Amino acid sequence: MSEEFPGYRGNALKFLKNAGAEIGDVIRVTKDGENWEGILIPRSEIGDENHIILKLKSGYNVGVRIDSTAQVEKVGAGVKPTFTPPPLPKQKTSLPKVAIVSTGGTIASRVDYRTGGVRPALSASDLYSVVPELADIAVVDTEILFSVFSENITSKHWIETAKTVAKHIGNGVAGVVVAHGTDTLGYSAAALSFALQDLPVPVIMVASQRSADRPSSDAATNLVGAVKAAANAPFAEVVVAMHETTSDTSIVFHRGTKVRKCHTSRRDTFKSINSSPLARMEDDTISLLIKNYRKRDSARKLKLKPTFEKKVALVKFHPDLNPEIIDCYVEKGYRGIILEGTGLGHVGNYCLSAIQRAIEKDVIVGMTSQCIWGRLNMNVYDQGRDLLAVGVVSLDDMLPETAFVKLRWVLGQTTKTEEAKRLLTKNVANELSPRTLNE
Amino acid sequence: MSEEFPGYRGNALKFLKNAGAEIGDVIRVTKDGENWEGILIPRSEIGDENHIILKLKSGYNVGVRIDSTAQVEKVGAGVKPTFTPPPLPKQKTSLPKVAIVSTGGTIASRVDYRTGGVRPALSASDLYSVVPELADIAVVDTEILFSVFSENITSKHWIETAKTVAKHIGNGVAGVVVAHGTDTLGYSAAALSFALQDLPVPVIMVASQRSADRPSSDAATNLVGAVKAAANAPFAEVVVAMHETTSDTSIVFHRGTKVRKCHTSRRDTFKSINSSPLARMEDDTISLLIKNYRKRDSARKLKLKPTFEKKVALVKFHPDLNPEIIDCYVEKGYRGIILEGTGLGHVGNYCLSAIQRAIEKDVIVGMTSQCIWGRLNMNVYDQGRDLLAVGVVSLDDMLPETAFVKLRWVLGQTTKTEEAKRLLTKNVANELSPRTLNE
Repeated sequence: MSEEFPGYRGNALKFLKNAGAEIGDVIRVTKDGENWEGILIPRSEIGDENHIILKLKSGYNVGVRIDSTAQVEKVGAGVKPTFTPPPLPKQKTSLPKVAIVSTGGTIASRVDYRTGGVRPALSASDLYSVVPELADIAVVDTEILFSVFSENITSKHWIETAKTVAKHIGNGVAGVVVAHGTDTLGYSAAALSFALQDLPVPVIMVASQRSADRPSSDAATNLVGAVKAAANAPFAEVVVAMHETTSDTSIVFHRGTKVRKCHTSRRDTFKSINSSPLARMEDDTISLLIKNYRKRDSARKLKLKPTFEKKVALVKFHPDLNPEIIDCYVEKGYRGIILEGTGLGHVGNYCLSAIQRAIEKDVIVGMTSQCIWGRLNMNVYDQGRDLLAVGVVSLDDMLPETAFVKLRWVLGQTTKTEEAKRLLTKNVANELSPRTLNE
Repeated sequence: MSEEFPGYRGNALKFLKNAGAEIGDVIRVTKDGENWEGILIPRSEIGDENHIILKLKSGYNVGVRIDSTAQVEKVGAGVKPTFTPPPLPKQKTSLPKVAIVSTGGTIASRVDYRTGGVRPALSASDLYSVVPELADIAVVDTEILFSVFSENITSKHWIETAKTVAKHIGNGVAGVVVAHGTDTLGYSAAALSFALQDLPVPVIMVASQRSADRPSSDAATNLVGAVKAAANAPFAEVVVAMHETTSDTSIVFHRGTKVRKCHTSRRDTFKSINSSPLARMEDDTISLLIKNYRKRDSARKLKLKPTFEKKVALVKFHPDLNPEIIDCYVEKGYRGIILEGTGLGHVGNYCLSAIQRAIEKDVIVGMTSQCIWGRLNMNVYDQGRDLLAVGVVSLDDMLPETAFVKLRWVLGQTTKTEEAKRLLTKNVANELSPRTLNE
């Protein structure tokens, strides 16, 4: 690896050196009659030694494999502006105080001004200086907690985030914004929903699908919406603030236990499942879409319960699922398994004995549906009744991902199986929706 | 177990005998101050010995747990009409020939005329006598292949179904209808799409969400639509025919590789993902919604390739996924793993070494997204590039379930890893959608 070419080594490094290129230069790679042209960007971890990463004009990055048939040329010098952040705007001390806690992800990515590469390293105060209108909404206190792309977030991070949010609430802020990657945002939002009980003020999780260097970036709009809601929203719940549609006209606030990432790249990727979003912000106005919600009340005392059992698995059923995998988890000392079954809550009859063995060893087995939308009913067919009869817990309309997080949380609160099952099926943070008349 | 009380034994059976009740009678169970009233229905498999199954007025079945505090009374005698199927309508031999192959599921359920219970046992000729208008559409040849609720369908059934469909096509039918349960219909539709290549005529898979004894049943509408399409549709592909919306006005035909069950109970539960449905039937007219399709041509020679490797798993990533589970599959001799990763195609960095170990043992690891909608791009972030660098195969916009079925099929066609990877990323049955201009 080389200091001038972070992340590059071997073959790729040799070609770059031979071409006399530097990070930030425009490079053309020709291979097999095709060519790629883009800005040479650094890699943040060492991968293989045969790829060069280019940022194309479209804003996307590609990795081009270099072999002996490849030609690498420098076709333009990098633009190397010096970036001086603007002076911090004067704080208007009469405004509500909002804490922004950054955990990483695209919304908290530093766009490297030299290379256009995306790195998970933007400080919360950088965010603040890049979006100066925040100064008109709130007095912002910022904290970089981690700098982690969200596929790498684990319960260790959930716990630290919950504690940090609680600390800021203890300091008397009007609300907390948590910046997070989109990939596992749904899981983390559920985790905070269970860990932060009786919230006095809102906790707004926010993300972006497109990094701030792309013209279609949703980072600034989402962040402004999140800070406004943290400062002023009438609700005191954990929500996810994201674009409602592909246009910039509205932000919706999804409840942390009902939200799911439903598209790999669209800006309106997050959807509330089996529920309406809690609220919408349009033209600076927040409209509530659900009648029953926890109202903001700064006198309410937050209960922090940030404990999650690690030995819980989410297992998606598929035809010919090997039931020995359930035994594997039991042998490894797992205490809970959430099944993502089919339809109204089924798995193949060839899995029944393994499930029964797990339950006999005191493992809690909960059922959800891979349909995603809708509600279980394990009483319609014999297969469902047989699963109930061996002790599988039907989780109604709970999202599989939320059920997984909840079972981890429940087993962090109690070691007693019956008490855990009771808590698992009790509505704690709006993870279960009431039946509507049309069902 | 008792002949008069199929499926009942132990405690439940004792209570039923004491009450002097028979299957089909109206029963009231009183327990803990609550009571349930409904028609006593049989169970098709032996479950536990403590539940009595009642069909409520709403049409749903409940299982009521009987303990020493329960009271069981007979409150009404069963209505026991004798059912004589209407005479088979006269076949109009000038009509196209259509084969209906029944594998089971709600659409092929016998509604027991005595009890109202739903059993997976309706013969295809029963279907025909219950929906007499079929006689005006086609000359129908019927075959009961299995009587299996679809959560119990495995690759063994895929193979038998593919062979049976091929047999009927060999006999010169204008199209084949396959009745199937909804739960794993998406998986089976993908399996037939790969196993039946160069189809000369359409294969229409059909199901229903509500059994024929419920006023809201979609069974007859879906079946009529499926037979019409088998007889007359211009396409020769494997499709799933289901309600387009919750009303009865249109049926859509989803391509077998792009379709997914997306609601536990709605009649429009099946959705085409990352694609439009292939066609719509409204007012008896079939409109094509996609330009490029395989046209019906009875002279085309079907290629039957009904081989599926059993040792392939679909593993959904979640925070703190234990990477040893990947090792478990490798130790059990698995040859392929489809990961359902996050976002653009990521998993936590703590899974990378286990994935690398699997690939070094010649296991094919394919990546899909748990977002369900959208397309992978593993070149945007380092995490994706690192996975590519160790040899993970990015599966673009393929559904996780389809990718799982395809990898099983691919490994049934070749034992050579490089050839299998090539086939896995090649478009075989429209499982990959072309990029559109807006992406």
